Parts: sequence; C-alpha cells; structure tokens
Amino acid sequence: MNQHSSREELSAILTEADQIVRETRRIIRAALRKGFEHRLKADRSFVTDVDLAVEDKTRRMLRQRFPEHGILGEERGGDRPGSDYQWIIDPIDGTHSLRHRVPLFGTLLALLHRDEPVLGVIDLPALDKTYSGARGLGTKCNGRVMRVADLGPGQPLEEEIISVGERPQFTHAGKARVFDHLMKLHPSVRTYCDCFGHALAIEGAVGAMVDFDLRIWDTSATAVLVAEAGGKYVSMVRTGTSLEDCRYDVVFGKPRVVDWVLALIKRLGNREELP
Amino acid sequence: MNQHSSREELSAILTEADQIVRETRRIIRAALRKGFEHRLKADRSFVTDVDLAVEDKTRRMLRQRFPEHGILGEERGGDRPGSDYQWIIDPIDGTHSLRHRVPLFGTLLALLHRDEPVLGVIDLPALDKTYSGARGLGTKCNGRVMRVADLGPGQPLEEEIISVGERPQFTHAGKARVFDHLMKLHPSVRTYCDCFGHALAIEGAVGAMVDFDLRIWDTSATAVLVAEAGGKYVSMVRTGTSLEDCRYDVVFGKPRVVDWVLALIKRLGNREELP
Repeated sequence: MNQHSSREELSAILTEADQIVRETRRIIRAALRKGFEHRLKADRSFVTDVDLAVEDKTRRMLRQRFPEHGILGEERGGDRPGSDYQWIIDPIDGTHSLRHRVPLFGTLLALLHRDEPVLGVIDLPALDKTYSGARGLGTKCNGRVMRVADLGPGQPLEEEIISVGERPQFTHAGKARVFDHLMKLHPSVRTYCDCFGHALAIEGAVGAMVDFDLRIWDTSATAVLVAEAGGKYVSMVRTGTSLEDCRYDVVFGKPRVVDWVLALIKRLGNREELP
Repeated sequence: MNQHSSREELSAILTEADQIVRETRRIIRAALRKGFEHRLKADRSFVTDVDLAVEDKTRRMLRQRFPEHGILGEERGGDRPGSDYQWIIDPIDGTHSLRHRVPLFGTLLALLHRDEPVLGVIDLPALDKTYSGARGLGTKCNGRVMRVADLGPGQPLEEEIISVGERPQFTHAGKARVFDHLMKLHPSVRTYCDCFGHALAIEGAVGAMVDFDLRIWDTSATAVLVAEAGGKYVSMVRTGTSLEDCRYDVVFGKPRVVDWVLALIKRLGNREELP
C-alpha cells in the first residue's frame, strides 16, 4: 500500500471505527442504567456482561465492514490471525472501575498493519470523550486537535503530574521498586490507571503515564494516539512472543518527563542507590 | 434552635447553597474555555485566578443572603468568626488538577453550626455532578439519593477500591508508612485525591477514602455528606487549635473498610511488624 492510498484509506476506516464506538457506547450507558453482572475469570480478573456484549457487537460490526481483516479481542480471542490488518479490541479497559461505577473506564479499538498500530480510538463513555486518530492524520478528542507540548526550558518537571497503573501491575512485572521510587521521588504521582490515565497523557494533562504489565489490547490505540499528538511513546516487551502473549511495560507523554522516568527505571535496574 | 425549625431552615439554606454553586460553576467553565493564570502561594501550593474569582463570588452571595453568618475561605480568610453559623469555602479543591486540566477538581461549600458541620455541597463542574445534603435531610447527587451500603458478610474486602490522597500529604502528616503499607497490603489502592475521591466514597464506588493533612475547608462538606449517606466518617485532629489552623487526618466510607484501615493505622502507630 503506498503512502497516498493509505492516508485516504485510513481516514475512511477511522470514520467507521468512530461509528462502531458510538454504537457500543449505547450498550455501556444502558448497562449503567439497568445494572449488570460480573464474575471472576481464570486469571483472577473480573469480566462483566458489558465487556462481552461490547466485544460481540464490535466484532459483528467489524466483520460486516472489513470481512478480510483479522480480529483479536480481550474476551473472545483471535480470528483470521494471518491477515495483514488486525483489529485489536479491549471492550472495557478498567472493568474494575466499571464494576464499582468509578467513571474512568473505556473502550479501546485499534488497527494494526503488519503488527504496527496505525489507527486508534479510546472512548470514555462516562466522561463523554472520544480520542481518535490514525497514522499521518493526527489525534483528536471530540473534534479538538490534541498536541502534547514538551516541557519548555523554564518549566520545572516537579510541577507535572505523573500517572501510574496500580502497584500490583508493577509487582507482576517484577518492578515494584519503580512504583515505590516514583511515589517517593516525585511530588505528584497518581494512580490514574487504565485508559483514563492514557487519555490524560494524550491531552498533556499529565506529564507522563507509566503503565506496566499490559497486553496488546491495552496499548495499541494509545501508541498511535500519543505519537500522532506529538508525544513520546516507549514500549518495552517483557515476555511473550505472539501478539496475544506479550506483556508490555510502557512509558509515554511529554518527552522530557518520559526521559526522566526511563532514566529512573534504568538506574533502578542497575541497582543504583537512590534517595 | 429546636429540631423542627432546624430541619426546615436547613432545607431552605441548602437550596440557596445549591444556587450559589450553580453560579460559581459558570465562572469555572468560562475559565476552562478562555484560559487562566496560576501562581505559587507562600505555602508552595498553587492558586489560580479561578480560585479567587469563585471565592469572591461565593462570599458576595453568602453575605447578601446570610448577613449574620460568618465566612471562612481558603483564599481570603475569616469574616465574623464569632457567629454561631460559619460558612466554609474551598473555591477549588484540586487546584493542581484544574491547572493541568485533569477534570477531577471541584468546589466545596459547608455550613458549620457551633463548629459542627450541618450542611455540605461538593460540586464537580467538569463531571457535571453536584453532591449536596444536610443533617437529617440525606445526601443527593444530581437529585439521586446516595446510600453507602456496608460490605455484606460474603463481600470480600479485597475487591473494594481504596482511594488515598497523594503521598506527600502522608509525609507531611508523618505517616508515609500508612501510604506505603496500604499500597502493599491492598490490591487496589488509587490516588483519587481531592474531592473526586470524596465523591467516590459518597457514591460507595470506593470502599473508603484515606486522606491526610487536610484543612477545615477540605473536610467539612464531606463529613456531612458521608454521614447523611450512611457511611462512617472518622476525623483525627493532628495539630492546631483554631478552625483555621487544624490539620485533619480522615478516613471515611463503608464501615467495614474504614475499620480495616483504622486498625492498620493503629498497628503501624504501635510499630507492629506488618507483612
């Protein structure tokens, strides 16, 4: 596919992706009004009826529109895994929040081309915000263009908020020290976990997000949206070999803040003494 | 004042308080559209033009409606401090969030009668939510009655989210160990700081909020709203003697979760070894 056709094609696909998310948002809002069931999965995380209904609806709409594309979803697995184009679905990112009605959960939809993320949508139904973008097309939130401005020379890093996932994510990744030291070394570190923290980084509202032990469906939309907004996105594959298996440790946001976090991670990895 | 007149009187005052907050919300929303300035205060925290404009407007409206009541505001200090009734204003709780456009800040307004909180309003303009209530009148959010249900016997405490303030609040209170142990011992501890975390506890969305080193304007509205929603509210005065000086360490939410947190704080205070 050449650069020109790709751009027009991506723009048309993005319009469809935005429509799909607008549809699934209705499922989520109805469930918030009527109530829903939850249960434990084998991996000890929760799933709700909402997760399943959103993923099923998304898969149906994708199959209708893009019959030749593959699909990988958090809840229902893979479909046509050999295709050049792969849709990646996280129907509810932040199921624990949804279950407790903390309004900071969302739906993530991304398109990979030969394993590279080229299009992403993060929808936060309870906040009425949709972030969407694609390679070469920029990132918008509800139509507003997103620009992650780096810190200028006079802007102190200490005044930035840094958001992180929950501590158990860092423990699973063998990196509890990263979480603990961030908390001790920076004055404003907040566990704005899941896609809400990602959205804040795309807005430039937080200086960086540090999110460990993620899966492909947690990271793909954000990778595109941050890069297209002008931010820095660094992903470290910790384990796994296939799309479905890999665990990712990611840091993204304003370049100077991302670099500060990466330097801290490196010093901790080298077992250097820190304050 | 007898119980009967107090109830009717409080209901009328609550209507006025709701109106005042609706007015100041317009200042905040306009500022979010147009932009605003911020600067450092002597205590190294930030203040914005929005904080000052909201407090000034609130004070003007309170003086018109309740000329005999006292007023204590975070930014402009006290007025008629000897009055039986004292209004307590935090024009922007979460100034750091507002400054960075994290949409989790709010306005707090409370009424004390002889130093006891009897009425409270928490307004979250960016989330379009207003929590308001008064002694004997219950707590509502946008008209919905709030009920904090305690955990039932079969509901595991580990599945609850616990929200906390930022770590430096605990450090200032000499209680960094409480923050660090909560993070280590409970699977889902999140720094939903400021009034957003308070609102989540009032909703029962988090099991408890643990918020240290607070001032009277951070705590008064919440004290009423949590108690009237059926939750448990425990406030420990750490230092200070006057309303303006005191520092409060507070824990509130579902009774069983609050008790678990209080037991942890006690064990840490006794320097017991914990896992």
